[in-house]
Amino acid sequence: MIEALSSFQQRNNQQLDVWLNRLPYQNLSLTQAMRYGLLLGGKRARPYLVYITGQMLGCELAALDTPASAIECIHAYSLIHDDLPAMDDDELRRGQATCHIKFDEATAILTGDALQTLAFTILAEGELSADGESNRIKMVQALAEASGAQGMCLGQSLDLAAENRLVTLEELENIHRNKTGALMRCAIRMGAMAAGQAGLDILPQLNRYADAIGLAFQVQDDILDIISDTETLGKPQGSDQLLHKSTYPALLGLEGAMKKAQSLLSEALQALEDIPYNTEHLEQFARYVIERKN
Amino acid sequence: MIEALSSFQQRNNQQLDVWLNRLPYQNLSLTQAMRYGLLLGGKRARPYLVYITGQMLGCELAALDTPASAIECIHAYSLIHDDLPAMDDDELRRGQATCHIKFDEATAILTGDALQTLAFTILAEGELSADGESNRIKMVQALAEASGAQGMCLGQSLDLAAENRLVTLEELENIHRNKTGALMRCAIRMGAMAAGQAGLDILPQLNRYADAIGLAFQVQDDILDIISDTETLGKPQGSDQLLHKSTYPALLGLEGAMKKAQSLLSEALQALEDIPYNTEHLEQFARYVIERKN
Repeated sequence: MIEALSSFQQRNNQQLDVWLNRLPYQNLSLTQAMRYGLLLGGKRARPYLVYITGQMLGCELAALDTPASAIECIHAYSLIHDDLPAMDDDELRRGQATCHIKFDEATAILTGDALQTLAFTILAEGELSADGESNRIKMVQALAEASGAQGMCLGQSLDLAAENRLVTLEELENIHRNKTGALMRCAIRMGAMAAGQAGLDILPQLNRYADAIGLAFQVQDDILDIISDTETLGKPQGSDQLLHKSTYPALLGLEGAMKKAQSLLSEALQALEDIPYNTEHLEQFARYVIERKN
Repeated sequence: MIEALSSFQQRNNQQLDVWLNRLPYQNLSLTQAMRYGLLLGGKRARPYLVYITGQMLGCELAALDTPASAIECIHAYSLIHDDLPAMDDDELRRGQATCHIKFDEATAILTGDALQTLAFTILAEGELSADGESNRIKMVQALAEASGAQGMCLGQSLDLAAENRLVTLEELENIHRNKTGALMRCAIRMGAMAAGQAGLDILPQLNRYADAIGLAFQVQDDILDIISDTETLGKPQGSDQLLHKSTYPALLGLEGAMKKAQSLLSEALQALEDIPYNTEHLEQFARYVIERKN
């Protein structure tokens, strides 16, 4: 576990709490479910990537809160919708009842919808640095591209289309580059954009890093689904196999999957070598991605 | 029927088609369902409001396509999610099978999600006039405010909370001001914003007009649910009563509801008197709202 992760987690929670407090009807199930879905647990890996990328470029933390909060809203909405009975039908997430179990299905659908919208409200209204201001609309564009039918939703749809059949390694990579990779890449992009032109200048290197760790994150998730336990994971262990999902261990064997994760780590570290800033935290995160236990 | 409505409908469809064509994986069920949900039927009342408001202010049509397309994506996504089994459980919409019937529930959830995202992609990337460009981020903000937990999703949630109990007239108005009114108001706002400062200057008057016709639209919907037939409506007639929904005719009687619609029309026309432009099309639309048959 990276120590700084938990302090950024707290910072992100406080920020999200401020945005939630601005909503009318705090007692309405919609608002309560948004709070439940956003604030109960979660590693906050995407906000963390925003913060460490922006910080590396000399950006103040306060100017990174906006993209960090926005991307967590998108992530939280996607989890709520993924857990729905018509999708993965999960009852447990982050060790808690999923949104449609705690509330009801209609509320869970609406809550996901409203959290997606909140992400764009935050990007449109939130504080940015003077440098970041010139990239505000670029951030809206990047977040939308990463979230929708060219990114996360596309990956989710490709994943649904691949259910109950064996996919090739290439197909599996394509699914995950969109389903989970696109948003992690976007976190890093937005952290860079918040720092202004300096961030735009190193986007190619950051993209290479992001693509590698995004995929590594999924490979490790697949590995943990086999070698971890339900309590540590906060969700049912073995659920991939139960749902006959194509996974890296299924295609490459457990050892092959672990090798794949190591090779993606090397790719990520190599990309960092071409970045003329102190990449210590990005390096540490890349190692964490394939060493984490949940 | 307003004649111009159908020509703007075609223009809007062509525009949306261009955005859809830019998506990868045209054969994927996600992309096909997005096309199905966006392009099959619909009055295009919201895009029409964008166009006539912007035109009144001297804005070129090409510079209005962007907000017009964005708002229709939000409207289309909301219909797809509203029709889901966990929500209104409707099988017929615009005379066609609803998205989850034509495809499946998982696809319908994802399709709504991706259409919401597409709205923000369009606002971030689409063409605007030089005057409108300065309001681009304001449009993102306006659309998000109108769509999420302060607007449409809020209204939907208030509506769910009001099911199976009799609400007061005040509560009903509050539901509809958010559920349907917020997006119509936003259409008019974005049409004005696309015209630059001239548009911002008359927002108070436009808001008064929008609030009146937004509510009138819902009152007339409730009336049509009683006096029209399934074929004309393109959705099952009498479904409000079947679902024990609170409606204006239920609270005011059919005649009372018709009077209410007339009084809202007067309010709308009065607001237009304070606008120093040719408000002919906005006036015509206000009349259409309470005279339409479907």
